[in-house]
Amino acid sequence: MTTLEQTVAAIRPADPAALAGARAHQQSLTKPRGALGVLEEVAVRLAGAAAVSPPPLPAPAALAIFAADHGVHAQGVTPWPQEVTVQMVGNFLAGGAVANAFAAQIGASVTVVDVGVAADLTPAPGLTISKVAYGTADLSLGPAMTADQVVAALEAGIAVARALVDQGARCLITGDMGIANTTASAALICAFTGRDAAAVTGRGTGVDDETLTRKVEVVRRALRVNGLVRGADAAAEDGSDAAGPERVSGAGRAVSALEILAAVGGLEHAAIAGFILGAAALRVPVILDGVITGSAALAAAALAPDVVDHCVAGHRSAEPGHAVALDHLGLRPLVELELRLGEGTGGLLAHPLVCAAVRVMHEVATFDSAGVTDKGA
Amino acid sequence: MTTLEQTVAAIRPADPAALAGARAHQQSLTKPRGALGVLEEVAVRLAGAAAVSPPPLPAPAALAIFAADHGVHAQGVTPWPQEVTVQMVGNFLAGGAVANAFAAQIGASVTVVDVGVAADLTPAPGLTISKVAYGTADLSLGPAMTADQVVAALEAGIAVARALVDQGARCLITGDMGIANTTASAALICAFTGRDAAAVTGRGTGVDDETLTRKVEVVRRALRVNGLVRGADAAAEDGSDAAGPERVSGAGRAVSALEILAAVGGLEHAAIAGFILGAAALRVPVILDGVITGSAALAAAALAPDVVDHCVAGHRSAEPGHAVALDHLGLRPLVELELRLGEGTGGLLAHPLVCAAVRVMHEVATFDSAGVTDKGA
Repeated sequence: MTTLEQTVAAIRPADPAALAGARAHQQSLTKPRGALGVLEEVAVRLAGAAAVSPPPLPAPAALAIFAADHGVHAQGVTPWPQEVTVQMVGNFLAGGAVANAFAAQIGASVTVVDVGVAADLTPAPGLTISKVAYGTADLSLGPAMTADQVVAALEAGIAVARALVDQGARCLITGDMGIANTTASAALICAFTGRDAAAVTGRGTGVDDETLTRKVEVVRRALRVNGLVRGADAAAEDGSDAAGPERVSGAGRAVSALEILAAVGGLEHAAIAGFILGAAALRVPVILDGVITGSAALAAAALAPDVVDHCVAGHRSAEPGHAVALDHLGLRPLVELELRLGEGTGGLLAHPLVCAAVRVMHEVATFDSAGVTDKGA
Repeated sequence: MTTLEQTVAAIRPADPAALAGARAHQQSLTKPRGALGVLEEVAVRLAGAAAVSPPPLPAPAALAIFAADHGVHAQGVTPWPQEVTVQMVGNFLAGGAVANAFAAQIGASVTVVDVGVAADLTPAPGLTISKVAYGTADLSLGPAMTADQVVAALEAGIAVARALVDQGARCLITGDMGIANTTASAALICAFTGRDAAAVTGRGTGVDDETLTRKVEVVRRALRVNGLVRGADAAAEDGSDAAGPERVSGAGRAVSALEILAAVGGLEHAAIAGFILGAAALRVPVILDGVITGSAALAAAALAPDVVDHCVAGHRSAEPGHAVALDHLGLRPLVELELRLGEGTGGLLAHPLVCAAVRVMHEVATFDSAGVTDKGA
């Protein structure tokens, strides 16, 4: 088997006994039942993923920022020049980005992974060079990647997950850097969920109305060119959204997750999908970041549905496609602060919340042990 | 001047120059403008409160849990026996409560303050005994406290804030423990905001429908008995909510915040209000917790409106009155995870988010310094 096949095969669903044990334990703790709201379910979820209750504390955390460039940049979908991808890689390595500040706040390591930056990078501490290509081809003109490139990027992500866990990480956080990558994310979300481009395409890191309109058109064209929309899409192509085309991936024929990634994904999307799969195969939880990660998680879930049991949605970004992706995955985000930065920033912010949820399972006294009167049912 | 008067007099509004400096600094950092959403405003807010940009990192944090009992417990507003207040104080001191686990997660100290527990507590490390009374009188029968008790509790809270800042705390987090205290909170929120009891009274730590109905009636009665509702309230008393009585504190005459606290507050509410005022007077930010803290913050803001500039809303609890209180204060909560525990748990969870927001101001490179191309406006 290939590394990808081995990894997918190793992923198990949440363990029912651990889930049940964790739920029962929550009921015995000195707090009103359910008083920790969403965090109780987070702790239960991690118990299921780890197959043990209480689950291990998900610390230390390690952030991996997968960086790559995008041929679709040529379509004018963002005001940022492509060279900013390289510049921001330099900023991450120098410790000057927001992701670095947030990682410092939680004691997480930061690894930058070049899976497809359109320039040669100088080796540096904290940088893993796993370049698959110098950026993708323009997804609005045809497939963004070859099948081999997709697998190579997925396996690069798996390798990073394995390496970070080997180094002691007990929670992985996904990050991304790639100018124009919200366009690829929108196309992936359309392809995996069947939603219309206008419903999932957003302003990314800040585009004006004209650029947003162009971006939606580019996403529509990418889906059409790559055979990922069926019949009624012509109406949408003409701008008549009211037609509500029922978009089904692959025009009725089965299109694999690998084909969708190759058609409209980015190298960092494929690598992040691999990173998520790699973590889940090792039963290490992954905190998802924003819309890029969310679209990559759709790919990972299409490859291995049980991977979702190992994911926590760190936050919900301002990008409309992100909510669509999280709904499709059945994940509720922990942080909702209108972030739209990427880099893993939303995942990093969620990490203390996840740790706090798990700490409760280890450290809080039971009614019996503390001599606190339970109100009963 | 009394300690309370001195404290109120020392509270300054946000500094305009620091606010402007912080906003300008945010624009220069290597991230798309506004990409950190709500957190950008949090950092700006703390700069204004501290009167310096960037503001100091709000760490270490100190949690104070103010504990007290409530005469209104006799009205059957909660399924929990009153002795649970004392038992939970013991649990806090033994390190076994959720607040302890969450405090450990962020390295915060935990101080328990007895301002009105209905039993004599044994001195212990971490316990400050500032008992004003053995619980309040039943607010549904008349004033819960005397004017002197309110001032004593407020000044106990001020003293705790001063002591914790003296010991090095650079962020204070409010916490509470007091069986039946969501009933007093609901009454305070009605009195300070003019909203109807049915709109702000919730299930607290978990009451059934019958108890909730009784609780709403108790809050209505408390407001009427204490002269805090005007004319049309008779309709509401009869259960005809549709009448929508326009509740104005004090039946038209000016009722002071101290009178409202005395009428329907709890000893911990008054102490928390003092704690917030004490922190603000020292220009140390306060992270507010849930509905008990929220109602106490309404009292603090009525005493010194500028105090709000020094507060961050840690979370929004499941209790309906909490959202009403936060709206009235003009504060947006950072964490919304359906917590309904109190103890300061929601404030503790928000602390890393606040720190992360401030860290950005100190640690993130500017476009110029990092050599990253700015896309321009």
